[in-house]
Amino acid sequence: MQEKNIPTKIYLEENEIPRYWYNVRADMKEKPAPLLNPGTHQPMTVEELSGVFCEELAKQELDDDTRLVEIPEEIRELYKMYRPSPLMRAYRLEKYLKTPAKIYYKFEGNNTSGSHKLNSALAQAYYAKKQGLKGVTTETGAGQWGTALAMACSFFNLDCKVFMVKVSYEQKPFRREVMRTYGASVTPSPSTETQVGRKLLEEFPGTTGSLGCAISEAVEVAVGTEGYKYVLGSVLNQVLLHQSVIGLEAKTALDKYGIVPDTIIGCAGGGSNLGGLIAPFMGEKLRGERDYEIIAVEPASCPSFTRGKFLYDFCDTGKVCPLAKMYTLGSGFIPSPNHAGGLRYHGMSGILSELYDKGYMNATSVFQTEVFKAAEMFARTEGILPAPESSHAICATIKEAEKCKETGEEKTILFGLTGTGYFDMTAYEAFHDGKMSDYAPTDEELEKSLAQTPKF
Amino acid sequence: MQEKNIPTKIYLEENEIPRYWYNVRADMKEKPAPLLNPGTHQPMTVEELSGVFCEELAKQELDDDTRLVEIPEEIRELYKMYRPSPLMRAYRLEKYLKTPAKIYYKFEGNNTSGSHKLNSALAQAYYAKKQGLKGVTTETGAGQWGTALAMACSFFNLDCKVFMVKVSYEQKPFRREVMRTYGASVTPSPSTETQVGRKLLEEFPGTTGSLGCAISEAVEVAVGTEGYKYVLGSVLNQVLLHQSVIGLEAKTALDKYGIVPDTIIGCAGGGSNLGGLIAPFMGEKLRGERDYEIIAVEPASCPSFTRGKFLYDFCDTGKVCPLAKMYTLGSGFIPSPNHAGGLRYHGMSGILSELYDKGYMNATSVFQTEVFKAAEMFARTEGILPAPESSHAICATIKEAEKCKETGEEKTILFGLTGTGYFDMTAYEAFHDGKMSDYAPTDEELEKSLAQTPKF
Repeated sequence: MQEKNIPTKIYLEENEIPRYWYNVRADMKEKPAPLLNPGTHQPMTVEELSGVFCEELAKQELDDDTRLVEIPEEIRELYKMYRPSPLMRAYRLEKYLKTPAKIYYKFEGNNTSGSHKLNSALAQAYYAKKQGLKGVTTETGAGQWGTALAMACSFFNLDCKVFMVKVSYEQKPFRREVMRTYGASVTPSPSTETQVGRKLLEEFPGTTGSLGCAISEAVEVAVGTEGYKYVLGSVLNQVLLHQSVIGLEAKTALDKYGIVPDTIIGCAGGGSNLGGLIAPFMGEKLRGERDYEIIAVEPASCPSFTRGKFLYDFCDTGKVCPLAKMYTLGSGFIPSPNHAGGLRYHGMSGILSELYDKGYMNATSVFQTEVFKAAEMFARTEGILPAPESSHAICATIKEAEKCKETGEEKTILFGLTGTGYFDMTAYEAFHDGKMSDYAPTDEELEKSLAQTPKF
Repeated sequence: MQEKNIPTKIYLEENEIPRYWYNVRADMKEKPAPLLNPGTHQPMTVEELSGVFCEELAKQELDDDTRLVEIPEEIRELYKMYRPSPLMRAYRLEKYLKTPAKIYYKFEGNNTSGSHKLNSALAQAYYAKKQGLKGVTTETGAGQWGTALAMACSFFNLDCKVFMVKVSYEQKPFRREVMRTYGASVTPSPSTETQVGRKLLEEFPGTTGSLGCAISEAVEVAVGTEGYKYVLGSVLNQVLLHQSVIGLEAKTALDKYGIVPDTIIGCAGGGSNLGGLIAPFMGEKLRGERDYEIIAVEPASCPSFTRGKFLYDFCDTGKVCPLAKMYTLGSGFIPSPNHAGGLRYHGMSGILSELYDKGYMNATSVFQTEVFKAAEMFARTEGILPAPESSHAICATIKEAEKCKETGEEKTILFGLTGTGYFDMTAYEAFHDGKMSDYAPTDEELEKSLAQTPKF
């Protein structure tokens, strides 16, 4: 039954949309390692980064000190189309699990991009427009980032060119149509439009693509086209900064009801959702004000945190991007094609990598059949059809709640429901038909892939 | 720019979810004509209707007098999963159109069924469970009702068997997967599982199906299976009753800000969304308290109001259902296969038919390419990717707003945004590729189809 005074959905007012993004780096004693120039191995400067990124975003990328970054009014106006997003209490899931745990989730899927990605897309398109650009290029995995960017570019009247990982392009034919509705062009990656793509297709003709390769293609086109810059939907510091709206809103909503989470759980591909969700809570933890258990959940088939190494690596397959120190599986790592949808990136946010390395957060990996089992349980109890990516967090949350059932602990769990699964029905179909298999790379495969990381 | 004090999204609190459905029939001086037994041509009794429908729903169907029907607490609890739904101000669309009109829309697509259909599905599943049934059968056109019912049945642990109009089954392969996720079985209609289906397939082997035929199949299976009843997602009085939550919430939200709409616009297939949206406003109009302009928007390819006749007709192709007095194109009418998605029903709600006949509302029809043009404009301004059905209302709203631009009139328009188009990308693709054509039946076609209506 519903807890007294705590509604199923906690909505904030529009004037409670944060006025500032929170930069967690400002509270980190040990900052994330700097991006390095791949040629000189020296830290990248704003000038160098501005060759690829919009200038303001390059500044945000390297700014480890400004704690609060004002959100431009134009962006806040667009946030009002779908924000504040609801914070939900999973009463029906709790009841189904017969758990004493109290489960909350921040639902970021209630916009047309179907995920949290729009939070950063709007910011990046805004800065691109402000700089007077004609357009931007990007890559997309599951298609959520591409859709979000297509929407954002449409609002700012910017051209948008998306390289979409081929496996998703094929699994999600309708994603392309949504992006087209917003005026974007979409190319399956690897493509023959770039040197990087052509080279990879020659070497691995049957490849289903990877984020790493799609990034290289998008960067190559951006750098080679007048009036264009490259934008990226995850991993980067700037993206985690923009995504802090998730955590800030969640915390405001929880504070209203005096709720303090014990455990915060999020799926982790490149880390943008998790980094955004935990931002203000991690800030308290870093400042020694309060402790939280924080859990990153990743697929067993792409286990950067749990089986990767913390070292400098290439961010992309083509090795055209700066080097980043992060948990990585090696830039040549491509998950098995039976891996459904997103969370396919070989690396991980530098911020989260540093925090994980220093013990501020934990990580766990889950297999995809248990993920889809959790997804279906969630759909049938909470009503929302979750994205496969988000379902990793659901799966870990259910495991925590089941532990609480055993121990009787009334833990308060907050997890990030990053998006909806409307465009993932091919994966659901494979699950229903018993055609989905579990997969994890062998130690040999990982060693081989990690052997390609740069030595210096 | 945003109007002072009026936010982009007007949310109500959970305790503002209506406690009563409003039965507009109670305020109609001339009631809708009764359903007739197809054999005797006498008004159907609750006992007779209960052979097909759940008993409580049969009572609601025939109750022309009870003005307020209490919403059972179990249903209100489930409404909290996605209600109150937001009332949105279309600031960005207004700006794009440079219109002095103020445009509001009640957005019913923020749940997994992607439409308003869940409002009635939860009610119908509740009454079926309360009666101790094992399961229910139904038909679905665009798939929204089927998805909504699958969800509702999953929450109440009821079996759910859906006959899906073949053209939608083929255009929307992923809809079936969503229904499966909620445990429903889905059969393309016409099927070989029923007498009605087999007969139609023999007569018209290439038919893409119709709602009328899918209804017949679902009824045939319900009547022939122990512990099963038939449920229907539109047209019926009971459905309009449940859907009154849309209008009641919209009115509460508008009243909070002292907003009075001049014009209310909704798409009309069977009439459930429109009937629900206008309910409390029509009540005021019927009681002579206030006047509103009310516009039903239908596809030119299935123009029940604008080109049909107001007479007793069969509700289904197989002629197994009661006769209803309504605006109809004839129960054998099947829209051209180039008609995208829903709004394919040959008839219309008896309540709305009576109100339209007495001049309480107007109707207009629109062609599908202008509908998709409006849909794309809406997506690019308001962010939400609308369902093709909802886009009929958008199209008519834009035309009204353009008229206001010419006259300078600052009209306040409220329209129903019934759902999202995530599963309609095949239709969007046809539009983008220039493969979508406009179509309206010829006078001869309609005459032929209407010649089949019963004479008595």
